[in-house]
Amino acid sequence: MKTSRVESVIKNMQQAGMSQLIISDPDSLYYLCGIGYDPGERLLAMYLDADGNAHLFNNHMFPQEPQDGLNIHLYDDVDDYMGMIAGVVKPGPIGIDKFWRAKFLLPLLEKAPGLEPRLGSAAVDDARNLKDAEEIELLRQSSAMNDATMAEVIKHLGDGMSESEMARFVAETHVKNGADAAVDQLVCYGVGCSEPHHECGKATVKPGDSVIFDIFAPRKHYWCDMTRTVFYKNADDEQKKVYEIVKAANLAGEAAIRPGVRLCDIDGAARKVIEDAGYGKYFTHRLGHGCGLAIHEPPDCSSVCQQVVQPGMCFSVEPGVYIPGKWGMRVEDLIVVTEDGCEVLNKFTKDMIIVD
Amino acid sequence: MKTSRVESVIKNMQQAGMSQLIISDPDSLYYLCGIGYDPGERLLAMYLDADGNAHLFNNHMFPQEPQDGLNIHLYDDVDDYMGMIAGVVKPGPIGIDKFWRAKFLLPLLEKAPGLEPRLGSAAVDDARNLKDAEEIELLRQSSAMNDATMAEVIKHLGDGMSESEMARFVAETHVKNGADAAVDQLVCYGVGCSEPHHECGKATVKPGDSVIFDIFAPRKHYWCDMTRTVFYKNADDEQKKVYEIVKAANLAGEAAIRPGVRLCDIDGAARKVIEDAGYGKYFTHRLGHGCGLAIHEPPDCSSVCQQVVQPGMCFSVEPGVYIPGKWGMRVEDLIVVTEDGCEVLNKFTKDMIIVD
Repeated sequence: MKTSRVESVIKNMQQAGMSQLIISDPDSLYYLCGIGYDPGERLLAMYLDADGNAHLFNNHMFPQEPQDGLNIHLYDDVDDYMGMIAGVVKPGPIGIDKFWRAKFLLPLLEKAPGLEPRLGSAAVDDARNLKDAEEIELLRQSSAMNDATMAEVIKHLGDGMSESEMARFVAETHVKNGADAAVDQLVCYGVGCSEPHHECGKATVKPGDSVIFDIFAPRKHYWCDMTRTVFYKNADDEQKKVYEIVKAANLAGEAAIRPGVRLCDIDGAARKVIEDAGYGKYFTHRLGHGCGLAIHEPPDCSSVCQQVVQPGMCFSVEPGVYIPGKWGMRVEDLIVVTEDGCEVLNKFTKDMIIVD
Repeated sequence: MKTSRVESVIKNMQQAGMSQLIISDPDSLYYLCGIGYDPGERLLAMYLDADGNAHLFNNHMFPQEPQDGLNIHLYDDVDDYMGMIAGVVKPGPIGIDKFWRAKFLLPLLEKAPGLEPRLGSAAVDDARNLKDAEEIELLRQSSAMNDATMAEVIKHLGDGMSESEMARFVAETHVKNGADAAVDQLVCYGVGCSEPHHECGKATVKPGDSVIFDIFAPRKHYWCDMTRTVFYKNADDEQKKVYEIVKAANLAGEAAIRPGVRLCDIDGAARKVIEDAGYGKYFTHRLGHGCGLAIHEPPDCSSVCQQVVQPGMCFSVEPGVYIPGKWGMRVEDLIVVTEDGCEVLNKFTKDMIIVD
């Protein structure tokens, strides 16, 4: 186990008055124990109590090295593995991983009737939230890879690839540049850009299209995530005007980041730029999301999140404007909070690009 | 909504005395409503009661066509969406999707205090379990694609690709052959084969290696899944002997399949071949798993599953022998249960292949 990280989690548990916790998020298990895989449908869970007792429940099929301080319980597919957990938990309140599935939680509640479950991931998430120096360096390297991929793929916009083909080309370029895996990307052309969660399809790019590259990948387990919007051949006056508004919102959001500021105020700083320009109703999502071992993790940089920013937090700043049926734009960077501001991990230009 | 499928689910709910159900598994939502995406961290859930009232809760960012008979509730990231569900559920027992995460389930229980949650997916899974003619045809086509991919990738065994590179080549070949997406594959060389859930690495193939190709992909949402074990350059006498045992176990399992037989007896028929040959302790997992809209879904073809086979079920038959530190072998087909036996969806040969 990574002792200092486990100690942070235990401290968070103690502060929250939580005496025991189930951790199942594979990223959290990587963070605490270096376990680097997702067991899919099978149970993989860690039990931790506030006295530091730690148990891991894992299918014997998965590679499992012994670890100091960790009691490892291996089970077979036909074993009563929920009964094994029930034998370790204590009656009373228990924190439950937010990602734990009902297929495990409900049988555990049945087998250990005195349990009082509540969401408990915050103890781990709050530790993961404050990246240590090793993690920040990995995040830098991951975003540098993303910058390199962006530079490479934009050059191929005129090659005739459909959205799906371009998305695959981005994923392959990521892998060539060192990503852990090829993951589905988000590439939108023209009207596809007007849907923030557009599904890539067979559309090809046309002159005048806005083009969103929302690209991301894990590298050594740490994710990058960046969006740039470019234009193909030409952009009309409204597109140019809105691009500058979205870029200004991104910069205003980043400028607002420093320890002590609330996340909602950062969202607000970016949103105000878009609202003041009269496009507020077309910015239909939060400003950003935490990023690290997961591409989407706490903190939540939204208009309702009162949480205060601390050094070591990493999150996205991604304002957007989406005009239904026409086009859309988004400009996204990852940032890490520093002692007196933030470090923008993405160095790729935000100046308007019209690809010829 | 796909009316006949929703009706099957309601019938199953009525038989189980379940008056209301939360469905969140994206595959089940595709099955019932044709919703073809996974909303990631966001809530996407359907509420269905035994009278046929249906509600869908979805983030407004995702494309959502109106559907007959379905009340659609769209929410914003900042809305109290769990409160929206709490306003629809009725106090008392409620079936919960086995995949539903604690981050949704626990807040719902807090907002709707009279709920008595229990696992409820069986009502949907039992419907999905019995594939209709349209689904069986899609499964056939998906496995035909897998056969074609297997034939193609085995030819490249001597090209010097590492396990990881070969796995990516398999994924790309799947996409070329019509797969919906490039997904991580399982390719193991030599000692890597001795771990049933080996992680592909940088190893390259050596003469005398067993090589496991466990390859799979979705095509039009329906998965294929096949394993073949081949040998590179040569195989020693024990490898050849064990290969024939594993192949015989696969054939014995398939021969045992017909409506009315219990899944544990099918597992037993295959397992007996390996046990009788003295390798029983090296066959360390269940015989197979259901396959359809998910690559792993019910039924469970294991030594403890008393469920009886019915026409339309689709599952894998995949006995294996894994000698720790040495090598391993697995032979896997997908089958669909017919009126009087089964149709083996994979046509790729199971004769021993030594690649030169």
